[in-house]
Amino acid sequence: MALTLQELNAASPAEALALLDGVYEHSPWIAAHALAERPFRSLAHLKHALASAVRNAPAEAQLALIRAHPELAGKAMVSKALTAESTHEQSTAGLTDCSPDEFARIQKLNQDYNARFGFPFIVAVRGPRGTGLTRSQIIETFARRLENHPDFERAEALRNIHRIAEIRLADKFDAHPKLGNDVWDWHESLARHSDPGYAEQGQLTVTYLTDAHRACAQRISHWMRDCGFDEVEVDAVGNVVGRYHGDTPGAKALLTGSHYDTVRNGGKYDGRLGIFVPMACVRELHRAGKRLPFAIEVVGFAEEEGQRYKATFLGSGALIGHFNPAWLEQQDADGISMRACMEGAGLCIADIPKLQRDPARYLGFVEVHIEQGPVLNELDLPLGVVTSINGSLRYVGEFMGMACHAGTTPMDRRSDAAAGAAELLLYVEQRAAQDGDSVGTVGVLQVPNGSINVVPGRCQFSLDLRAPNDAQRDALGTDVLGELAAIAARRGLQYRIEESMRAAAAPSAPVWQQRWERAVESLGVPVYRIPSGAGHDAMKLHEVMPQAMLFVRGENAGISHNPLESTTNDDMELAVQAFSHVLHQLAEASA
Amino acid sequence: MALTLQELNAASPAEALALLDGVYEHSPWIAAHALAERPFRSLAHLKHALASAVRNAPAEAQLALIRAHPELAGKAMVSKALTAESTHEQSTAGLTDCSPDEFARIQKLNQDYNARFGFPFIVAVRGPRGTGLTRSQIIETFARRLENHPDFERAEALRNIHRIAEIRLADKFDAHPKLGNDVWDWHESLARHSDPGYAEQGQLTVTYLTDAHRACAQRISHWMRDCGFDEVEVDAVGNVVGRYHGDTPGAKALLTGSHYDTVRNGGKYDGRLGIFVPMACVRELHRAGKRLPFAIEVVGFAEEEGQRYKATFLGSGALIGHFNPAWLEQQDADGISMRACMEGAGLCIADIPKLQRDPARYLGFVEVHIEQGPVLNELDLPLGVVTSINGSLRYVGEFMGMACHAGTTPMDRRSDAAAGAAELLLYVEQRAAQDGDSVGTVGVLQVPNGSINVVPGRCQFSLDLRAPNDAQRDALGTDVLGELAAIAARRGLQYRIEESMRAAAAPSAPVWQQRWERAVESLGVPVYRIPSGAGHDAMKLHEVMPQAMLFVRGENAGISHNPLESTTNDDMELAVQAFSHVLHQLAEASA
Repeated sequence: MALTLQELNAASPAEALALLDGVYEHSPWIAAHALAERPFRSLAHLKHALASAVRNAPAEAQLALIRAHPELAGKAMVSKALTAESTHEQSTAGLTDCSPDEFARIQKLNQDYNARFGFPFIVAVRGPRGTGLTRSQIIETFARRLENHPDFERAEALRNIHRIAEIRLADKFDAHPKLGNDVWDWHESLARHSDPGYAEQGQLTVTYLTDAHRACAQRISHWMRDCGFDEVEVDAVGNVVGRYHGDTPGAKALLTGSHYDTVRNGGKYDGRLGIFVPMACVRELHRAGKRLPFAIEVVGFAEEEGQRYKATFLGSGALIGHFNPAWLEQQDADGISMRACMEGAGLCIADIPKLQRDPARYLGFVEVHIEQGPVLNELDLPLGVVTSINGSLRYVGEFMGMACHAGTTPMDRRSDAAAGAAELLLYVEQRAAQDGDSVGTVGVLQVPNGSINVVPGRCQFSLDLRAPNDAQRDALGTDVLGELAAIAARRGLQYRIEESMRAAAAPSAPVWQQRWERAVESLGVPVYRIPSGAGHDAMKLHEVMPQAMLFVRGENAGISHNPLESTTNDDMELAVQAFSHVLHQLAEASA
Repeated sequence: MALTLQELNAASPAEALALLDGVYEHSPWIAAHALAERPFRSLAHLKHALASAVRNAPAEAQLALIRAHPELAGKAMVSKALTAESTHEQSTAGLTDCSPDEFARIQKLNQDYNARFGFPFIVAVRGPRGTGLTRSQIIETFARRLENHPDFERAEALRNIHRIAEIRLADKFDAHPKLGNDVWDWHESLARHSDPGYAEQGQLTVTYLTDAHRACAQRISHWMRDCGFDEVEVDAVGNVVGRYHGDTPGAKALLTGSHYDTVRNGGKYDGRLGIFVPMACVRELHRAGKRLPFAIEVVGFAEEEGQRYKATFLGSGALIGHFNPAWLEQQDADGISMRACMEGAGLCIADIPKLQRDPARYLGFVEVHIEQGPVLNELDLPLGVVTSINGSLRYVGEFMGMACHAGTTPMDRRSDAAAGAAELLLYVEQRAAQDGDSVGTVGVLQVPNGSINVVPGRCQFSLDLRAPNDAQRDALGTDVLGELAAIAARRGLQYRIEESMRAAAAPSAPVWQQRWERAVESLGVPVYRIPSGAGHDAMKLHEVMPQAMLFVRGENAGISHNPLESTTNDDMELAVQAFSHVLHQLAEASA
C-alpha cells in the first residue's frame, strides 16, 4: 500500500519516522529533523524539508551521511549486505551483472575515489520508468567525477543522495511524476534527431533547417496535434506553432514557447523544455475537455542559437518583425545561403513579414527554460523565478607591452602585457561581484606564442559583462574600461578594445513574475528569484509585450551547452504544475 | 684641426661651450650643464656628463631637445634649412636621394609619428667607417618605432640623440673607435655565415656543426692567427681555442671567451663579443711585442644555446669534464645524431675527455657579453659589472577549475582557472620585485580553447624565477608554490605543477668583480653593478675556478635573441679598453 501525505502528516513522530525509514541510507536523523515541519503541503515540500535538514546539518553529519552509503558494486554488494533499497538500485543499473573487467575497473575507481575524497562514490542511477544509467555511463560518470574539486564533489554526493531519496519517495508514495515522465520522453524522442557528423558520435546537434531540424519540427507538430491543439503549423521561418483556442472566439492568447534548435554537441533540454511543458498542460486541458477564457499559443522557435547562420533569435525575432532580409544572403560553412536553405525546406520567404504578431491580441509571453547555471542545483531548489534577462556587453581586446628577456629585464623595467590582463581580470571579478547580481568574465586569455623565458609583449583577452538592467550593465562596462585605461597607463602598456556585442536587459513584467512566484509557492517549495545570465527568446518578445520566465534546475552543477546538461522527470513535473497554476491564475483573473 | 680633451678642459666656459657647439641640436644648455663637471678624464666621461645633463633635466626640456631636431627627409631638408651636422647625416644615409615613393612613405611616417608622439622621429643613422642604416632600414625602423609606447619612444628618441652626439663628438675630437671598429667588422664578417633556410632570408642562425658553424670556426681561428696567438686549434667539440703565451713557459693562463653559435634568427653580438674583445687585446699586445706574466687563452665556445641538440653549454661544459656521452645519441630535427654530426665534422670524440682543464693552471675566467637586457641602455651607461649569474627555476603548470556559462554562473559560484592564474601572475610579479634583484615571469598564459562566454575551466601557465643566489631563488620558489597552493585552496581550483629546470647561481668572485670595477672606473664612466639574468658560459667555468663578467650595453632597449640586437663600435672600444685594463691589473699583481 502506498503511503499518503495525509498519513504522514497525521502519524505520531515515531510512526512518521518509521514511515520514512530507508529514504536516506542509515540516517534517520534527517527525517527526524524534517518532520518538525509537518504538515507537508506537497511531496515537493517534504523533499525540500529533508534536503534542508541535510543542508543545515554540521559538515561532519553530512560526511557521515555520505559515508553511510555502500560502494558501487563494492564489498557490500558482493556479500549481500546492502539495504533493500540499494540492492534494488544497484541491480537495476545492472551492477550485479558486471563483467570481470568492468568489476575490476569499478573496484579501481572505488579505491581511487575513496583515497581522494575519503567517502564512497554516490550516483543516482535510476531514471524514469525503469530506465537509468547504463553500466558504462556509470563508469564514465565515476571517472569524470574523480576529477572534481573535493568541496564540489562533496556537494555533488549530497545532491545525488537527495535524488536517490526523491526516487525512493516516489516508490513509497507511489507518486511517480506522470506528466514529468511524458515531458522526459518527448525530450528523449526528439534527441534522436541530430545533424550528420554528430549523430554518428551520439552527439546532439540540431541547426537551422537541416534534415534533423526539419524532422524535429515534424515531430513537434505531430505531438501538438496529438495533444489536442486546434491549429498546428510550421510557419514561414520554421517555427512550429500550436494554438489551443480559448472559450470564446477572438479571445486574447497567452504566448509561450522556446527553441528547438541546439548548439553543437549540446544538451537535450535547452529550449525544448519550454515547448514540452506547455504542451503537457494543453494536453491535460484537452483531456479534461477544458477551455480557458484565453487561447494558448505554444511556439517551438526554429532558431535561437545562431549556429548555422549568424542569425540568433531568428525564430522569436520573426514574431516581432525583426527578420533581417540581409540574413538571406549569409552562407553556412558549406556555402549554402540561408535563402537557398529556406527555399529547399519549402518555406515561403515572402510570408515572413506576416509572422509579426499584434501585441494587442496577446496577454503576454511566458517561457520555461532550464537554468543553464548552478544556482538552483546548489540550493536544492527545483524551480526559480526569473527577475530579468541580463543585459550584456562583450569586448575583445589586447594589451601590447614590450616582449623582453625574462631573465635580464628587471621587474621595474617591464611592460608585461599579461600582467596587465591579469590585473584587468581580477578587477572584472571583484567589480562584478560588488554588484551582487552582475557577472563579468574573461573567457579568452592568451599570450600569443608565449615562451617560458620571454616577458609577454602581447596578451589577448575577452570581456563578457552582464547585469539585470542596462544602467547597471553600463556602469559596470564604464568602470571596466576605465580600469583598463588606468592599468595601461600605470604599466606603460598600449591596448586595443573592440565592442562585439551590446544587448539590452529584459526585466520581467512584475505582474507576470508574481504569477510565477504564486505558482511556485503553491507547490510547497520556496520561491527563489534569479536573474537570467543567458539570453532567451523572451528577450525578443519583451520588446512588444510583458514577459516573465521560469527556470528549472539543471543537474551536474547546471552545466549547459554540453551533453551533460540534465534535469529530472520530477522537476519537469513541477514545471508542468507551475505552468498549469499560471494558466489557472490567468483564468481566474479573466473570470 | 681636431679638438683635444685638454683644450676642452682648459677653455673658458664660453669657449668650451663654443667648442661643443652642434653636438646636441640647437641645445647649448646641455653642454653648459655638462661642462660643470670638467675636467673630463675621458671622452666617455664627457659623453656621460652630457647624457646626465639631459637625464637630469625637466621633462619639458627633454621634449624641447627632441623637438629641436628636424624631420627625416622633411621640409627642412628640402628647403636646405638643416644644421651642417644634420645635412651631413641625412645625406650619408642617402635620404637626399629618396625615390618619390620612399619620400612619400617617409612623409606619411613623419606625419603619423608626429601625430602619435608630438615630436619628430630621430634615429642615429651613421655606423662605423661611413657605413650606417640604409634608406630601407631607416624606413623599417621608423615603422617599427611608430608602434612603441609614447613613454618608451620618448626615451628611445633621447638615446638616439645621445648616439648622434657620440658620433658628432668622434668627428670633433677625431677620436674614432679604431679597436671598436675592428671588433665591429669581425662581427659583421662572421654574421655572413648562417644556416640554410635562414641565410636566404637575411636571418642569422648558426647551430652546432652546420656548414655555417664550421665556417665560423674556420674564420675565428684564422683571425686568431692573424692577431698573433701562438697556438690556435679547433678542439674535439668544435671550440676554437687561441693561446697567447706568457712571458715565461709554464705561466698560468687567464681563461676567457664566449660562444659563437646563435639561437635561430638571433643577433650578431650574443656570445661573439666575448671572443672578439679579448682577441683585439691580444692583437694589441702582439703588435706592441708585449708578453704578460701569464698566458691568455681565448675560447670561442662551439655550443651554448642548445638549439640543434639539447646540449646547452656543450662547449664550456667540455672544459670542466661535463660532456655527457648520452648526448651523442640525440638526433636533430633531421634525424642526424650528434655522434654522426661530430664525426662528419672530423672531430675526435675520443679526445673529448682530454679537454677538461686543470684549474690549477688558470688564474680564473672572465667573459665579456652583451647585456641582453635594457638596464645599461636605459641608464645611458656603456658597461656594467656583473655581480652574479642568477640561479633559476622553471615550472610549467595548469589550474583546473569548472568551465561554466559566463552569463548564468554567479561570481560567488565560480572556480575560474584563469582568475587563479591571474592572481598567481600578480603575486609572482610583486614577490620578485620585493627582492629587488630577483625576477619572476609568467611567459606562457593561456586558456585552452577559451570562449568569450565560458568561465575558464583550465588555464595553462609557466613560471620562470631567477635570483642572484640559490637561497634567494629557493625562497622565491617556495613562496610562489605556497601561493599557488593557497590560491587553489581559496578558489576551489586544482592544479598541476612540474619543475622543468633548476640551475644554480654563479656569484662573481669578489676580487675578479673588483678588477672589472676598477677597469670601468679607469674609463671615466660610473661603475654599475648588475646581476645577469641570463645564463652564460661563465656558469660552467664557475664550478672550477673564480669568474666574473663584464656586460656591454645593448641598443634597442637591450633586445636579444632577435635580429634587432645591437651595440655600438664606441661601446665595443670601451669593452676592449676595460679588458686591457684587467690584463694590466693582473700583470701588476703578478709583478
